[in-house]
Amino acid sequence: MPTRLTTYFLRTLREDPSDAEVTSHRLLVRAGYIRRQAPGVFAWLPIGLRVKEKIERIIREEMTNAGAHEVHFPALLPREPYEATGRWTEYGDGLFRLQDRKGADYLLAPTHEEVFTLLVKDLYNSYKDLPLSIYQIQDKYRDEARPRAGLLRGREFTMKDAYSFDYTDAGLDASYQAQRDAYERIFTRLGLEYVIVKADAGAMGGSKSEEFLHPTVVGEDTFVRSAGGYAANVEAYVTEVPDALPIDGLPAAVVLDSPNTPTIATLVDLANAEYPRPDGRAWTAADTLKNVVLALTHLDGTRELVAIGLPGDREVDMKRIEVAFAPAEAEQATEADFAKNPALVKGYIGPWSPLGAVLGEESASGIRFLLDPRVVDGTEWITGANLDQKHVFGLVAGRDFTADGTIEAAEVRAGDPAPDGSGPVELARGMEIGHVFQLGRKYADVLGLKVLDENGKLVTVTMGSYGIGVTRILAIIAEGNNDDKGLVWPAAVSPFDVYVLATGKDPAAFSAAEQVCAAIEATGRSVLYDDRPKVSPGVKFGDAELIGIPKIVIAGRGVAEGVVELWDRVTGERTPVAITEVADALG
Amino acid sequence: MPTRLTTYFLRTLREDPSDAEVTSHRLLVRAGYIRRQAPGVFAWLPIGLRVKEKIERIIREEMTNAGAHEVHFPALLPREPYEATGRWTEYGDGLFRLQDRKGADYLLAPTHEEVFTLLVKDLYNSYKDLPLSIYQIQDKYRDEARPRAGLLRGREFTMKDAYSFDYTDAGLDASYQAQRDAYERIFTRLGLEYVIVKADAGAMGGSKSEEFLHPTVVGEDTFVRSAGGYAANVEAYVTEVPDALPIDGLPAAVVLDSPNTPTIATLVDLANAEYPRPDGRAWTAADTLKNVVLALTHLDGTRELVAIGLPGDREVDMKRIEVAFAPAEAEQATEADFAKNPALVKGYIGPWSPLGAVLGEESASGIRFLLDPRVVDGTEWITGANLDQKHVFGLVAGRDFTADGTIEAAEVRAGDPAPDGSGPVELARGMEIGHVFQLGRKYADVLGLKVLDENGKLVTVTMGSYGIGVTRILAIIAEGNNDDKGLVWPAAVSPFDVYVLATGKDPAAFSAAEQVCAAIEATGRSVLYDDRPKVSPGVKFGDAELIGIPKIVIAGRGVAEGVVELWDRVTGERTPVAITEVADALG
Repeated sequence: MPTRLTTYFLRTLREDPSDAEVTSHRLLVRAGYIRRQAPGVFAWLPIGLRVKEKIERIIREEMTNAGAHEVHFPALLPREPYEATGRWTEYGDGLFRLQDRKGADYLLAPTHEEVFTLLVKDLYNSYKDLPLSIYQIQDKYRDEARPRAGLLRGREFTMKDAYSFDYTDAGLDASYQAQRDAYERIFTRLGLEYVIVKADAGAMGGSKSEEFLHPTVVGEDTFVRSAGGYAANVEAYVTEVPDALPIDGLPAAVVLDSPNTPTIATLVDLANAEYPRPDGRAWTAADTLKNVVLALTHLDGTRELVAIGLPGDREVDMKRIEVAFAPAEAEQATEADFAKNPALVKGYIGPWSPLGAVLGEESASGIRFLLDPRVVDGTEWITGANLDQKHVFGLVAGRDFTADGTIEAAEVRAGDPAPDGSGPVELARGMEIGHVFQLGRKYADVLGLKVLDENGKLVTVTMGSYGIGVTRILAIIAEGNNDDKGLVWPAAVSPFDVYVLATGKDPAAFSAAEQVCAAIEATGRSVLYDDRPKVSPGVKFGDAELIGIPKIVIAGRGVAEGVVELWDRVTGERTPVAITEVADALG
Repeated sequence: MPTRLTTYFLRTLREDPSDAEVTSHRLLVRAGYIRRQAPGVFAWLPIGLRVKEKIERIIREEMTNAGAHEVHFPALLPREPYEATGRWTEYGDGLFRLQDRKGADYLLAPTHEEVFTLLVKDLYNSYKDLPLSIYQIQDKYRDEARPRAGLLRGREFTMKDAYSFDYTDAGLDASYQAQRDAYERIFTRLGLEYVIVKADAGAMGGSKSEEFLHPTVVGEDTFVRSAGGYAANVEAYVTEVPDALPIDGLPAAVVLDSPNTPTIATLVDLANAEYPRPDGRAWTAADTLKNVVLALTHLDGTRELVAIGLPGDREVDMKRIEVAFAPAEAEQATEADFAKNPALVKGYIGPWSPLGAVLGEESASGIRFLLDPRVVDGTEWITGANLDQKHVFGLVAGRDFTADGTIEAAEVRAGDPAPDGSGPVELARGMEIGHVFQLGRKYADVLGLKVLDENGKLVTVTMGSYGIGVTRILAIIAEGNNDDKGLVWPAAVSPFDVYVLATGKDPAAFSAAEQVCAAIEATGRSVLYDDRPKVSPGVKFGDAELIGIPKIVIAGRGVAEGVVELWDRVTGERTPVAITEVADALG
């Protein structure tokens, strides 16, 4: 029996929802798939639930193929395991916390590493039990600061999260690869183009991490890739460190007047005008060393200033900064921060001044000083002299100043070399659709998950964590599959296989439509049938286009000659077909 | 491919979990179906998830048969709709409440009447859109005070909740009946015996309500039923009111000394000894009027005393009291309450004293006075005289005292008449497995859900609400289907259709078992195969019994002769069968 629009709980809307900022949100609401309940919190209407279940089915099949077993954890979890790993605090405002009637602390889980670890600890004790991969498809919670992109970044969202357990590094590699392979199959079946990029594993304490990004110009993530096959998100890009240069024989640094040059551009102009290079080459921003002061807020609430030195032709990338300092939060230092540190002369900050070292833990300011990896020993710089309206020229790294360490803080630019030598990178934008992660022994260490190995020795288990945002990829599929008329689902996730509609007032069209529905369903395909008797063809066509089932059959005047029309939602092409041949013609 | 124990994520436990107070909890944990995460909060392991999904599938099929469409709402919902209906407050400590990062109030939904109402209001506006029935299978939250019975009363639990929308009372009756019929089919398919009892609809503000109870001596609900077909839970039982008696000619009441008679038993003894009836019939407890003082705590926090007068041979039933006064909470009045009301002479309280009326809003105490419906005008009573050590005899209802109303507060006893005249009732115990409810217009009124009727007039929609606790009925099935060895699943919900085990060290047994698995799966049945190579037959048999799949095949020594054993988990019977005939023999 087809699903009939006269009784189905489906209503399309003529107007875009006022709060929808992205296409998927707008179309999924208008076409009756979802309905907003609160910021980032949605109800699934019948037709939306069908798409979600199709995606889940594909994921389940590939998880089974990867040897993973399905479990289901609660969303409501006690504080203690998350306290043990530090995530109760590290998640900050992003975690929904609550108390029960006895005042015990609970959370709505954002991911489940802790309790999966404890479950396996509970039930397993021997290397013979391993490897193990378990997963769930479950509703998760994150209190996003700006939940404005519909399902792309919800506060309640469905996720497939899998966890692997091994007792050797080689075992983890194999489990990781099995999930990674499954992800490739899943995204291929879903018709979702993807790029696998190296991701930063730092914040989670793991050793290896890759993201599956769907390339799209509206993506919120930037990644780099080389023609030679390198791909990484910008947070994970590692700068190629040039060789150090000889210091011997370099001239001494000189402090020169540089009035009104608080920016790199004004400084370069002045240098070229007033202090041209003897060899005639122009000074450029790349010859200057820019020192940026940031304020970190640590988990315990303390505030620390830190300075970053980088070539003046590069900006700091706050996303890279964020990853580099996580879980501390970084921001630009404020006027108040400068006021408290009179050793810093704003606009003219440098690591060195005639009065002594200014940046670095052993310096006058005591402010930690980190350098871009390109600032190797022997490089010469124009930089602030920590004296108002003065810069120092020819300051040599490793001779005149040193740092407390290096940091990946500078923006990555098109043309930068891939760290694996595979050529220059280009920048692209994408949306994260999956993430695979070698957690290593971090969680097992903290929570005490050990097994006996072949020699009867207790060894700590090594873990992986693998996530796909189910509701998110549904939205991403909708983002990538629509036109000005509405949604255009790929067949693999279309809520129904075929949309049948009858037009006009002639009962013959409706009975022909019924016949068509029956014939299609006899081939195992599902049908949504627009059987509304008093709705104009224009409205019916508009709804069919908005809802976006890729194959449409129209039963109209032609039925008198035994003919209906096949309407391809993708190409827009309409083809007359004999009623008796519709099921075959659908391919 | 069979699911193999060597790789399946399933571990049975030898010991009962220490916190398990009920059989289902104990066995489901021991057999590896569930694992506790917090009080009343459980994780589902793979084999448990299979049972849960089988139950859900049956429910879905019957919901579809009843014409209901599946949707899925979030668990996290904003306060406002629940504030509008009063449930934000009325749920008291039972509601999990939380705030987001902006301080907005949210709850974890215990049921979803409000948001279903708002969804339909959002999308529908005409009588032509109705009737509509929509449902979800979704995880719900209630902060139970004592979550000690495993899945029987969880704090996070899965529920099927359906809601119907009609614009006429007759429509609601039909929608209600369709759900009620679906429930009968569901419980029949699940092999769950049930009784449909009238339930109290008061607290939810509705007009009609029935519960599906599974009769069991360990049930937490008491219900009554007559041979003539009446059935109700005790909260919904309505007392048959006797006819009033003539008052004219009854003798005047007299106050008599009754030293040391603070209880009904001591009072009856003294009355028979000191003040025998002229006609020689003994006084009994039924001749006395007992006055019980309760303290109500209203939602706004105010405390009110209320007195209930009932025949001395009946106790008050606190469950009936609870329903009668909901949402106020009732408890016995405390010593402090009595101390504040000197008009009440504890142990000798009555509605009347020689000094004037004592109970009732117009009385000396001003305490509201409610009577059992059996205390009709013209009945004569021995009751307290509100003087220490004195009772009054021959106090006549309607002549010497009146009340502010009647109340269904007295216990129901076996032999009490069914209110529909179908004979005396008996008492039984049961567990609630489903609840169907005519909400009427309460929610639609408050939230403004109206549609245009045939005449273009706005009418308020009338609703029904229908619930089945999925995880609860799973536990109830486990409660009713086990023996001292473990679980014994009914075929309809068994996690696998057949359990195959190979014993001994002879590879022939294992290859015969593989052959059996393949033959069974070829008939469309699912198989769990105990392929563990080095586990003793005793352990294997024990696990098979604990896990409780009803049909077991043992491949052991007999395979040399081409024979395996069919082991019926229900009867314990073992039957040799030719390997080639196993699939057929399973029926």
